[in-house]
Amino acid sequence: MENIKAYVQENKDRFINELIELLKIPSVSADTAYSQDVIDTSEAVKLSLEKAGCDFVEICETDGYPIVYGQKMIDPALPTILVYGHYDVQPADPIELWTSPPFEPVIKTTDIHPEGAIFARGACDDKGQMYMHVKAFEYMIQNNNLPCNVKFMIEGEEEVGSVNLKTFVENNTEKLKNDVILISDTGMISNQQPSITTGLRGLSYVEVEVTGPNRDLHSGLYGGAVANPINILAKMISSLHDENNHITIPGFYDNVEELSLEERAEMAKAPFSLEKYKNALKLNDVYGEKGYTTNERNSIRPTLDVNGIWGGYIGEGAKTVIASQAFAKISMRLVPNQDWEVITELFTKHFMSIAPAGVTVKVKPHHGGQGYVTPIDSIGYQAANMAYTETFGTPAIPVRSGGSIPIVALFEKELKSKTILMGFGLDSDAIHSPNEHFGIFNYLKGIETIPLFYKYFVELSKK
Amino acid sequence: MENIKAYVQENKDRFINELIELLKIPSVSADTAYSQDVIDTSEAVKLSLEKAGCDFVEICETDGYPIVYGQKMIDPALPTILVYGHYDVQPADPIELWTSPPFEPVIKTTDIHPEGAIFARGACDDKGQMYMHVKAFEYMIQNNNLPCNVKFMIEGEEEVGSVNLKTFVENNTEKLKNDVILISDTGMISNQQPSITTGLRGLSYVEVEVTGPNRDLHSGLYGGAVANPINILAKMISSLHDENNHITIPGFYDNVEELSLEERAEMAKAPFSLEKYKNALKLNDVYGEKGYTTNERNSIRPTLDVNGIWGGYIGEGAKTVIASQAFAKISMRLVPNQDWEVITELFTKHFMSIAPAGVTVKVKPHHGGQGYVTPIDSIGYQAANMAYTETFGTPAIPVRSGGSIPIVALFEKELKSKTILMGFGLDSDAIHSPNEHFGIFNYLKGIETIPLFYKYFVELSKK
Repeated sequence: MENIKAYVQENKDRFINELIELLKIPSVSADTAYSQDVIDTSEAVKLSLEKAGCDFVEICETDGYPIVYGQKMIDPALPTILVYGHYDVQPADPIELWTSPPFEPVIKTTDIHPEGAIFARGACDDKGQMYMHVKAFEYMIQNNNLPCNVKFMIEGEEEVGSVNLKTFVENNTEKLKNDVILISDTGMISNQQPSITTGLRGLSYVEVEVTGPNRDLHSGLYGGAVANPINILAKMISSLHDENNHITIPGFYDNVEELSLEERAEMAKAPFSLEKYKNALKLNDVYGEKGYTTNERNSIRPTLDVNGIWGGYIGEGAKTVIASQAFAKISMRLVPNQDWEVITELFTKHFMSIAPAGVTVKVKPHHGGQGYVTPIDSIGYQAANMAYTETFGTPAIPVRSGGSIPIVALFEKELKSKTILMGFGLDSDAIHSPNEHFGIFNYLKGIETIPLFYKYFVELSKK
Repeated sequence: MENIKAYVQENKDRFINELIELLKIPSVSADTAYSQDVIDTSEAVKLSLEKAGCDFVEICETDGYPIVYGQKMIDPALPTILVYGHYDVQPADPIELWTSPPFEPVIKTTDIHPEGAIFARGACDDKGQMYMHVKAFEYMIQNNNLPCNVKFMIEGEEEVGSVNLKTFVENNTEKLKNDVILISDTGMISNQQPSITTGLRGLSYVEVEVTGPNRDLHSGLYGGAVANPINILAKMISSLHDENNHITIPGFYDNVEELSLEERAEMAKAPFSLEKYKNALKLNDVYGEKGYTTNERNSIRPTLDVNGIWGGYIGEGAKTVIASQAFAKISMRLVPNQDWEVITELFTKHFMSIAPAGVTVKVKPHHGGQGYVTPIDSIGYQAANMAYTETFGTPAIPVRSGGSIPIVALFEKELKSKTILMGFGLDSDAIHSPNEHFGIFNYLKGIETIPLFYKYFVELSKK
């Protein structure tokens, strides 16, 4: 595979333009207004897999958005790699904070990306990282050096909880049979220091509704005499953390895996500057659970965050109203061994129990997923590390991520194989935020590194 | 004035028809689409005052809608009563909830109004109550028993904050000179039990902004490691009340007038059913400051309510984001002696002080107004009470309202005279709501009671 560098250089512009075309389709799975765009994107992905060299590609319908499945089987005796990715993206709002329209991709340079980065919703998460695999596969086909079988499973509901992927995987274990699952939907430490994500947090996402009076009331005539749903919701949310920022839900920490001091010391070796971290976010200070470092708080510790809140009059000027209802979207990041369904039940039970008389409370579970840890002594991990070492000139560091890819735990349960998370994004890529971008360097480096994973994985498998 | 009853009976139909004509003009001051109608209404009011017997009436232009001024000076040595009211009305929407068109007045009977009520926007607030004064004045002119001087100041911007009235009053203190101000823009307990509003609450309205990271963040990658502005806002709002629902802002209660047990016992005599109150709002229980009854909580006690809150993702579905900012609109209802500007400062100082490291907080004052209380031993109050007692056969009960009429405090400051709030409306009249109406009984009873106020006020003034 010595000519991979050359191939990437020759086709660089085309690789970038193809990705830009894909980014132009606003495949926002959370908003039904974009449903046709999501469908169109699945068609575009199908086409790209066919062009790249799959000998079989199909659009698999689900109760939600379709899953694009493609494969290239060269020899049943050889190992099979299953590539997973997603073609749907997060909503773009707050739209006014984008410096260029989220679905009109442009290349701009930044301090971290002097050679330019593609700015668009989904540039990194996950269209860009998913498409690296399509182009790496194209290279191996074009150069007759695909060393094993490959299967692609690209879904369109990852940003809304992969609600229908579970059923699809359960019903297609034979079709999806593989020796290792390869995903690029995470990040690495920096463009100088690659890392491999060895742990993911689980997730429980709920929506709560607090109802007081049966109609909006005049705050002068009723203020102080009835429970104000917004004040009550604030009180209830506030009570979910104690003064040390521990979560107060009874039983919440019961199964939390406590790392040994050795493991925590190992983690602490990853290069990290608290000053740079604060400056990057323009924060005067960090904030979190007492007794843990910033990197521990966002990786090995469970959290509870309000992702959205609304109620009452939020227009221009002033309106003296007591709203009849107030709402919040709340998500909890979980660590390995915390079962998301159990946690969702504990949250619901507790949240209902702290509702004062004068209001009624509803909790609607949205979705969730289990956490995941992968051992670093597996063939897959070693192959990934060898690939990074060759292209970056330095070994990758194992890192626990705070993010969640709920389906990873599902894959292991249903398909009995380990997942390798080869991420090429950076924390500064602003995924889920305005001005999401993906470095040209990272995009091309990914295309260059992936074939090496195939090569080393097959070699190590033979031993 | 023994013939007032008879006069009202003889002219009853005309009184009703004249009001109906006035109600047909959609004088919605909040909507510029009706600006000509608002102007037309001021002309109609001017004409009605001339017809009723004013010897001088003028339309006073302002930067907004005009103020109609009229007067009848019979003897500078006699007391002067200034009547204030407004000819503009609230918007009619939601129009679909009206059982008859808001500007096509019809008379319908209800359980509370077996003799019929006029259904139309402004029927009670305030065209109906304002016009009672015009007709009461007409009676006194026709029967040569007007006992004092009278001045009318009828504005057209009350429903949009009386923005230009302040300047008008400040610039015309001589012209508006009076011994007592009489307003019918409030309600009474019931048609069997008259009441006089002796207190209004002040208001301080602010908007707060909590900023954490400089951009929205992925709640997985950053959750638990940075201050979440929504969680922090909830925590800060929650801390503004203690476990007894007392407001925790230092100095907030310093000037709060504490009523004596006698005064509270007097208040408690007002007929009130907690069950009916809860059922009307479909509440399983009331909620408020410990140690006070529902009627005390919404009248003699200051309150703090969030009128609106927003932040993060509030669209369909789920988004795992930590918002960069969270916002809330917060208003405090104040009681007499609490200065709204001082309270706004105390709130701002305290709210900034409780912001934890990791966020920055801004407080933007919106507007406010002073509370008002009228002593029940004043000549004006006694005269009003004597008038009610004579026409209703039972004394009026003094009642503190939770609402605010900022101009009343302005009148006292600029014109150095007390305001008497002689309301004839009922809570069930649905002012500011669909199907606003005003009882025929209430309308005629008001016309019958007002001249007696003039009579007793002049008599008591002589002593």
